[in-house]
Amino acid sequence: MIGFDGLGDRPSAVLGGKTPLEDAKKPFIDWLASLGAQGVIDPVSPGVIPGSDTAHLAIFGLDPFKVYPGRGPFEAIGAGAELNPGDIAFRGNFATVDEKFVVIDRRAGRSEYGLDKLVDSLNKGVGEIEGYKVEFYRAAEHRLAVVLRGVGLSDRIGDTDPGVEGERVRVSAPLDNDPSSKRTADLVNKLTEEISRVLREHGVNKERVEMGLRPANIVLLRGAGKMPRLRKIYELERIHIERAGAVSATALIKGVTKLLGFHVVHPPGATGGLNTDVHAKVRAAVEMLDRGYDLVYLHFKGTDTASHDRKPREKRSFIEKCDSALSEVLRDFMDRAVIAITGDHTTSSTIGQHTSDPVPLLVYSEGMFQDMLGRFSERTARLGAIGRIRGSDLIYLLTDLAERQEKFGA
Amino acid sequence: MIGFDGLGDRPSAVLGGKTPLEDAKKPFIDWLASLGAQGVIDPVSPGVIPGSDTAHLAIFGLDPFKVYPGRGPFEAIGAGAELNPGDIAFRGNFATVDEKFVVIDRRAGRSEYGLDKLVDSLNKGVGEIEGYKVEFYRAAEHRLAVVLRGVGLSDRIGDTDPGVEGERVRVSAPLDNDPSSKRTADLVNKLTEEISRVLREHGVNKERVEMGLRPANIVLLRGAGKMPRLRKIYELERIHIERAGAVSATALIKGVTKLLGFHVVHPPGATGGLNTDVHAKVRAAVEMLDRGYDLVYLHFKGTDTASHDRKPREKRSFIEKCDSALSEVLRDFMDRAVIAITGDHTTSSTIGQHTSDPVPLLVYSEGMFQDMLGRFSERTARLGAIGRIRGSDLIYLLTDLAERQEKFGA
Repeated sequence: MIGFDGLGDRPSAVLGGKTPLEDAKKPFIDWLASLGAQGVIDPVSPGVIPGSDTAHLAIFGLDPFKVYPGRGPFEAIGAGAELNPGDIAFRGNFATVDEKFVVIDRRAGRSEYGLDKLVDSLNKGVGEIEGYKVEFYRAAEHRLAVVLRGVGLSDRIGDTDPGVEGERVRVSAPLDNDPSSKRTADLVNKLTEEISRVLREHGVNKERVEMGLRPANIVLLRGAGKMPRLRKIYELERIHIERAGAVSATALIKGVTKLLGFHVVHPPGATGGLNTDVHAKVRAAVEMLDRGYDLVYLHFKGTDTASHDRKPREKRSFIEKCDSALSEVLRDFMDRAVIAITGDHTTSSTIGQHTSDPVPLLVYSEGMFQDMLGRFSERTARLGAIGRIRGSDLIYLLTDLAERQEKFGA
Repeated sequence: MIGFDGLGDRPSAVLGGKTPLEDAKKPFIDWLASLGAQGVIDPVSPGVIPGSDTAHLAIFGLDPFKVYPGRGPFEAIGAGAELNPGDIAFRGNFATVDEKFVVIDRRAGRSEYGLDKLVDSLNKGVGEIEGYKVEFYRAAEHRLAVVLRGVGLSDRIGDTDPGVEGERVRVSAPLDNDPSSKRTADLVNKLTEEISRVLREHGVNKERVEMGLRPANIVLLRGAGKMPRLRKIYELERIHIERAGAVSATALIKGVTKLLGFHVVHPPGATGGLNTDVHAKVRAAVEMLDRGYDLVYLHFKGTDTASHDRKPREKRSFIEKCDSALSEVLRDFMDRAVIAITGDHTTSSTIGQHTSDPVPLLVYSEGMFQDMLGRFSERTARLGAIGRIRGSDLIYLLTDLAERQEKFGA
């Protein structure tokens, strides 16, 4: 299963009205299309713009409407945290407050100067509160992820982030009567004091003020979410997958697949960008197939990166580079593997954002119903024999073709 | 409504790359296709391989994910049991144990010698335990279905089947704290003793041992399921069907349609196989239409039988035979009936198994939106005006065309 992050796209003027996938010279993938069948996937549901996290949960058989705990935990995973069920994660901002804790700047002037050092100091200087472990992870720009670990925590608590400037940092309050919510809110308020203690007189902030930058003297917390126990890929009903592997260099995807029970490989040279060593990734995937893994997920991030950067040509080239690398090895598996090529969501390289446009899907399996469309693109996929399915249908479709699914009933 | 069991198929090399439905000479059905509209059905959901039971529940308006109690009750129905809500049914194996109840062979050497007699003796020799009626039904090969009837039973109990050889027959244990689970587990353990008592010294087993066969001296039980109260076809919301009839010769389908409130007819000469008297079945269906039934379901099993036996030519011939029989009588109903031709699921005659491939659907109703595809096959159905629907949508689609459905809302 090959997942090009943000694969789907819209027609692009610089490509003569074609999409990057449509315009790419990709002889191997198009040859697969002549032997397989296409369709389109609504990762979550039609019209809903998926994140990479909700989309990946769906294509591995879970219903994100039921299991997704909010962005906190998954942003923490994207920042490199390894979460366990029951952990609480927040989205955080480095911000600037005055001596009365009134928020002057919710983003500390958007300057990233010294923030890595501040995160280090927070991890060393806070560490633990009342026996609960606290961890800080640097995210993009002024953002970070904050994790509370331990038993009996609740995510039914209020934000400390007032959401606007000119107001005081909020006191977190429990949002229900469960004792765990009261306990967690108290913990978060102590955490805010500890954060302030570590940051207020920090050398980095002295330097920032000297440089005319706003001090990053507080962390505002919002969107508490509790990590749920997610059903592993090998626990899905009626499906026989015992060993699953994933190849990715992207923290969020590595984290999600690991949570779902995949053995995750990040090969040297894989960067999660356009400059990644695609050959190393393909080799890592093939090695897992050779070692008897039942499902191998090979994730390429470059398509999404190019789309966010509004670079349809680079997206096209990246697809061409991957096609060539896949061609060299996948031909050997045509008689013994079901091959799926798709994406987690559509990222438009014209607007630079995720969209809800359905994602093209190409499936090859010996003996399957072929639609003989012969080329693979957003346009052909809509005409394909597989039709339009949900993300969470995909693993069932593939395991049926692989004869690794029990029928539902008698 | 005409249901060809396992109708959908994949292209077959022996039919020149066509499917049996595609290759069949079926002038009546193709003529209907020139006047009606086609679509495809995912009986349960895309990618999920349906059983005949879950598929039939769906096409008669129920959600199998919500109402299906596991295979135990429906395998019992398939073996001829008539279940009431609250009854508990198990899947059972005749097996061989040593004097210490260690399982030597989970399938009693797969020999069927004398098993009918043993089932008779179990029904006579066990009959009742602590006021709960016990029934045994012979199923295919070494398998049987075991039913416990009475009030206050639970299906939250463990199997007695250890699942592997070399271990002792398990003591069934309650899986929750409900007193009914404890009671049922105790009952099942007594039942195992009673079964052993009847089988141990049975003449059939002496004969088996003399013949060098393994004795069938125990019944291993697994997959307890409690029969739910299923919503009858005439109880579906906003639908006006007062009298529904079904014509079938297949125990499972007869049982399911009866549970759903259909009057079931099994005409003489109908066998549930390729040699069935299709004319007798068509006549039985027409007779019910003439007597004012609102919905008549005519079930043909031959298509599924031929598919499981990997005989695409026989499947094609069976469709042709049915087309001819339908042609003779259905022309008279063109102005006063909605006619649907479909299947419960796809059975591939190339791999001999159910698959999740969507099932072709042809609907004819005077005045409906025609798609004028002119022929009926898996390939045309994907292009049809009805598009792709779920099994549980079908009864709504048909009752709308028949003007027997109230709008949902004002």
